[in-house]
Amino acid sequence: MSVVSTFKLTLAYEGTDFIGWQRQATGRSVQASVEEALSRLEGGSVTVIGAGRTDAGVHALGQVASVTVTHLIDAGALRRALNAILAPDVRVVAIEAAPPDFNARYAARGKTYRYRIVCGDFISPFDRRFAWHVPHAMDEVRMAAAAERFEGRHDFAAFQSAGSGVTTTVRSVAHSRLSCADGECGARTLTYEVRGDGFLRHMVRAMVGTLVDVGAGRLVPGDVDRITESGDRQRAGPTAPAHGLFLVEVSY
Amino acid sequence: MSVVSTFKLTLAYEGTDFIGWQRQATGRSVQASVEEALSRLEGGSVTVIGAGRTDAGVHALGQVASVTVTHLIDAGALRRALNAILAPDVRVVAIEAAPPDFNARYAARGKTYRYRIVCGDFISPFDRRFAWHVPHAMDEVRMAAAAERFEGRHDFAAFQSAGSGVTTTVRSVAHSRLSCADGECGARTLTYEVRGDGFLRHMVRAMVGTLVDVGAGRLVPGDVDRITESGDRQRAGPTAPAHGLFLVEVSY
Repeated sequence: MSVVSTFKLTLAYEGTDFIGWQRQATGRSVQASVEEALSRLEGGSVTVIGAGRTDAGVHALGQVASVTVTHLIDAGALRRALNAILAPDVRVVAIEAAPPDFNARYAARGKTYRYRIVCGDFISPFDRRFAWHVPHAMDEVRMAAAAERFEGRHDFAAFQSAGSGVTTTVRSVAHSRLSCADGECGARTLTYEVRGDGFLRHMVRAMVGTLVDVGAGRLVPGDVDRITESGDRQRAGPTAPAHGLFLVEVSY
Repeated sequence: MSVVSTFKLTLAYEGTDFIGWQRQATGRSVQASVEEALSRLEGGSVTVIGAGRTDAGVHALGQVASVTVTHLIDAGALRRALNAILAPDVRVVAIEAAPPDFNARYAARGKTYRYRIVCGDFISPFDRRFAWHVPHAMDEVRMAAAAERFEGRHDFAAFQSAGSGVTTTVRSVAHSRLSCADGECGARTLTYEVRGDGFLRHMVRAMVGTLVDVGAGRLVPGDVDRITESGDRQRAGPTAPAHGLFLVEVSY
């Protein structure tokens, strides 16, 4: 007799060597890696649903995925078995039993992302995979003021890449703040943290590109409001590189 | 007309893909990488002397090296040019002019090392290259007490690997402390920091292996004194893996 079990998996991964979360015809995706490991343990095909479809190169500290299986019961044993099978750039941080209809994507109520920027004329070997290197000093006070202007319920069409096919581009951003500190090797490190009910395609990276335009003096903080109101992607800053971005947490 | 200039270089590197600091017959060493980059700029053979000969896999935040050249004058321009030539896993953090007889190895008065340990049943993708994964909880209070027992002037023969050919095994350790914190993904992270006038071959790693034996209950803090007094390498703990170790700073 088989028992149907649904699990909620919390995953951490380094995005460097992945083509992103989503399974594609070719290339190494996080989704396929986890599905293949689970299929080996289950003895049959398994589908994993991720809360966020992180792009190639984007990292995760707390991606969440749901899976329904028929032969696997013990969450603790499953976590240990998966970590023994998976490559070391993806780890199962936690597994817990979930209701039968739990879907990690549709049940998600909010997500927290972090973006790291290192300013200065070089980036340390330890930051190079985990931060965007901007080779000059930036106006941190203006950047922090600009970051706060993203908070609230807005139409974020100006910060969306084409091709996502969403029905509405209105999202609520509960928290959008920049903090600055001196990192290893004396490098100035800016950490942007944003939490909201959902994000459009490349939205966090377009917001970060806009903040860097403010930091470099190409825009002023008030431009964030004007760009948002315009709904024009051409007026916002560039899409920041993937490797500075971390999916930190998904809330339910 | 050529001008003879001596420079003090401060270097950061990720040790993962290096055979260590020292140039060898085959393999990619940090020393050879820096010498080759400098030789290209100088237009002739250059020898670089490092303060510490870090082993394969050991990282550096503040290795110091000395070099004497005849065609390169401007320290700032030289730093930028070296960082443009070198692979991204080694960076020149600082360059300053030094007296003509400055030798980074013989002039060093002290070194600071850091060693990172992650406890728990998995290690995050972000820590895997930069910490020793110990797959169980440890007695942190006893480990911290043991760490302090290394402070002072002692004969550290029991913590030395064979083959170093030093004339004396007496060293002064000014600071030897363990701190503990919760890291990313909830992992318990222990950070050991040690500062002294000099270190024997594999000494820090043997000290860390001994601390982990204390944390696991195989030794008690007082054993540190007894092992030190014995001078017997067999009684100390194992040599901890290279990839948890960082050369943080060299003082002059």
